[in-house]
Amino acid sequence: MKEKSDALNLHSENPGKISVEASVEINDEEDLGLVYTPGVAEPCKEIAEDKKKAYQYTSKGNLVAVVSDGSAVLGMGDIGAEASMPVMEGKSNLLKKFGDVDGFPLVVDSGKPEAVIETVQRVAPTFGAINLEDISAPECFRIEEALKQRLDIPVFHDDQHGTAVVVLAALKNALGLLGKELEDSRIVIVGAGAAGIAVSNFLLEAGAEEIIPVDSQGVIREDDGNIYKARLAERTQASEEAGGLSDAVEDADAVIGLSVAGLISKEMVEAMAEEPIVFALANPEPEILPEDAKNAGAAITATGRSDFENQVNNSLAFPGIFRGALDAEASEINEEMKIAASEAIAEFIEPEKDAIVPQTMDKDLAMEIADRVAGAAEKSGVAGR
Amino acid sequence: MKEKSDALNLHSENPGKISVEASVEINDEEDLGLVYTPGVAEPCKEIAEDKKKAYQYTSKGNLVAVVSDGSAVLGMGDIGAEASMPVMEGKSNLLKKFGDVDGFPLVVDSGKPEAVIETVQRVAPTFGAINLEDISAPECFRIEEALKQRLDIPVFHDDQHGTAVVVLAALKNALGLLGKELEDSRIVIVGAGAAGIAVSNFLLEAGAEEIIPVDSQGVIREDDGNIYKARLAERTQASEEAGGLSDAVEDADAVIGLSVAGLISKEMVEAMAEEPIVFALANPEPEILPEDAKNAGAAITATGRSDFENQVNNSLAFPGIFRGALDAEASEINEEMKIAASEAIAEFIEPEKDAIVPQTMDKDLAMEIADRVAGAAEKSGVAGR
Repeated sequence: MKEKSDALNLHSENPGKISVEASVEINDEEDLGLVYTPGVAEPCKEIAEDKKKAYQYTSKGNLVAVVSDGSAVLGMGDIGAEASMPVMEGKSNLLKKFGDVDGFPLVVDSGKPEAVIETVQRVAPTFGAINLEDISAPECFRIEEALKQRLDIPVFHDDQHGTAVVVLAALKNALGLLGKELEDSRIVIVGAGAAGIAVSNFLLEAGAEEIIPVDSQGVIREDDGNIYKARLAERTQASEEAGGLSDAVEDADAVIGLSVAGLISKEMVEAMAEEPIVFALANPEPEILPEDAKNAGAAITATGRSDFENQVNNSLAFPGIFRGALDAEASEINEEMKIAASEAIAEFIEPEKDAIVPQTMDKDLAMEIADRVAGAAEKSGVAGR
Repeated sequence: MKEKSDALNLHSENPGKISVEASVEINDEEDLGLVYTPGVAEPCKEIAEDKKKAYQYTSKGNLVAVVSDGSAVLGMGDIGAEASMPVMEGKSNLLKKFGDVDGFPLVVDSGKPEAVIETVQRVAPTFGAINLEDISAPECFRIEEALKQRLDIPVFHDDQHGTAVVVLAALKNALGLLGKELEDSRIVIVGAGAAGIAVSNFLLEAGAEEIIPVDSQGVIREDDGNIYKARLAERTQASEEAGGLSDAVEDADAVIGLSVAGLISKEMVEAMAEEPIVFALANPEPEILPEDAKNAGAAITATGRSDFENQVNNSLAFPGIFRGALDAEASEINEEMKIAASEAIAEFIEPEKDAIVPQTMDKDLAMEIADRVAGAAEKSGVAGR
C-alpha cells in the first residue's frame, strides 16, 4: 500500500466509492410520463398480480445488498455500522467492476442478530440476492441460516464462503505444485470464526480428511459451548488431537491462518512437515509475514493482501459467484456452485509457487466463474427460480 | 401517454430504471489495495472514531433512500412492497437526473407501521436522508413523526410535503392570475389522506384562512377518530361547516382534489365562485377531466399528469429539495425550507393560465430550488449538521 493518506484521499475526493445512476433516459415529457406517472402504474399493476414480474420490470434481478452490522470488520472487530460502510462500498464497487452486478452497501445498526435477520428479510423484496459481510461469529451463522430459510433469493456470507472458495483453489494448486494431495494432507486451520469454520467445512466437502481447527483455546472440542465449533469438532474428529496451536502444527502440510496478526511463529513453521504451505490470511496484518515464513522453511506462502505474492482474498470469487447465481436465476448458492467457482479459479492459471491463484481479479476470470456457477446451479436443480 | 405497452417495454428492456455504479476506478493492484483491503481500513478507522466522518469518506452524504411499504401506491392502494418498486425507481431516477442525488429504491415488506419505523431506523446509517413514499394514511404520519424524532438526518414524506410545496406554488400563481389572494380565498380540499392533510396544513402555514378539508364522510370534524383529521379540523374551524362535498364547494374559489378518480362533478364546479380554480390531482385518473371542468366554468385547471396542461406533481419539487437539504448538511427539512422551495417554483416562470407552474421539471429549476432551500436551512438554524 501507498501512504495512509492515499487511502483517505481516494475515499474523500468525491466521497465514497459508488453512485446510483438513472439507467433510463428522460428527454421529454413523454419519457417522463413513462418513467413516472402515469406510465409507471403499468409495471406496478403487473407485479401486483405476480410478484415474480419484479424481475422483468425492475432492477431487482441485478441488485445485491452488501449487508453488514459492522460487528467484525477486517481485523478491527466491532466498529459499528457507519464505520463498516467503506468495506461495503468497496465490495459494491468490485461487484460492478468485475461482475456487472449492481451491489449496494446497506449497513444495519442493530444490537442483536434477530434485528439483522428481521431487517434484511423486510427489505429483501428490493434485491435479487443478499451478500452478508463482516458480521461476527457465531451470530453470522444463525443470521445466514435464518435468512436462507426465510428468503427465496440467494443469501451468501462472503467472509465464510467466498473465503472458503478461494482458499480451496489456492490450496489445491499449492499442494499440486508440491506433489501432495488434499486427501492425504494434514491441514491446520488457525481461527474458528466465520472464515475458519467455513473453510474447514468446505475443505472436508472437497475431500480433505485431516483438518485440525484451532481457536484461542487450542484444538476445538466436541463439548464446545459454541454449537458450530462443536459440530465441526465432531466432523473433523479434532478431539483425537490435544493441545494448542504449537502442538497442532507439528508435521502439518498446510497451516491456514484466518485469525489475527502475529499468531503464527517461525518456530511453528519449522515444526511443520517438509515443504510446508503457510497461508496467513488475517487482514490487514497477517499471522506471519511471508518473508518470515519463508525463512522458517515455508515452500509456498499466501496472504490476504494485494501487496504480497499470492493474494488469497475473497475478492477473487464473489463478483463471479453473484453474476453466475443471478444469471441462472438461482434460488440459493449451494455447495455445488461453490465447488464450481473454486475449480474455475484454480484452473484459470498455470500455477507457479508465487502465483497459485490468479494474481489480480479480472473480468475474464469473473465471467469464467459465473459460467461455471450458473452451470452448477442448473445441474443441481436450483436454477430458474 | 403512449400505449400501455410502451410503459411496459421501457421498464423491461434493461430491467428497471436505476443502476449502481463504481464511482472510483480500479486500474491496477495498487488501486485495488486502496479501494479494498488493506487501504479501506483507514477510512473505517476514522469513522469508528467519529461517526460524522462517514460524510467525508463514504457515499452516505449524497445517498437518499426512497422508501415504501407499498401500502398506498398511486391510485392503486395497498399493492405490496414488490409492486411499489417501479415508483421508487422512478423517483430515484428523477433524483439523479434533476438533483444529482443518489436516490436508492428501498421497498419494505412489513405488516405494521412499527416495522417500517424500525427498519428505516436500522438502515439509516447508510443514508444522508430518507424519502418516504406511497405509505397509507394515517400510518404515514406516525412513521414520519417517529423517524424525525429518532434520526439526525432529514426525513421527508414526499406524498405529503412535496405535494404541498407544488400545490402552494401553483395555487398562488393561479390566484394571482385571477386577481385573488390566498388569504381571502375559500379553498376546498377533497381527500383527507396524506396529501390532503399535508396540503391543508401547509396552505394554513402559508397564510390561507379558509380551508375546508372534506373526506368521504363529508367535511372533517373535530371529533374524528383519526387524530390527524381531528387536529386539522380544529385548526381549520371546519366544524363550522356542515354537509358533504357538494355543500362545501359552494362559492369556493378553489377546489383541490387529492383523492380518487371521478369525485368532482361538473355540477360541483358550476356551484363554485366566479372563475373557479380546479386542481384534480388524483393519479393516474383525475377527480374530473380538465375538459369537463372547463366546460363547467373552471378558469384554471391542473392535474397530476404530464399529458394535460398544468401538471401539479411533486416531481417538480423533491429533487431540488433533497439537493438543497444535502448541500446545507441540514438535520431536517422544516417549514421554512418548504416555503422557500414553493417560492422558487412559483417565481421560476411568468405564469399563464395554461402554465401556472413550470411545464416540465428541468435541472435549472431543481438547482434554483436547491439554492433557496439551502439558504432557508441556514437562516432557520438547521444547517451544518
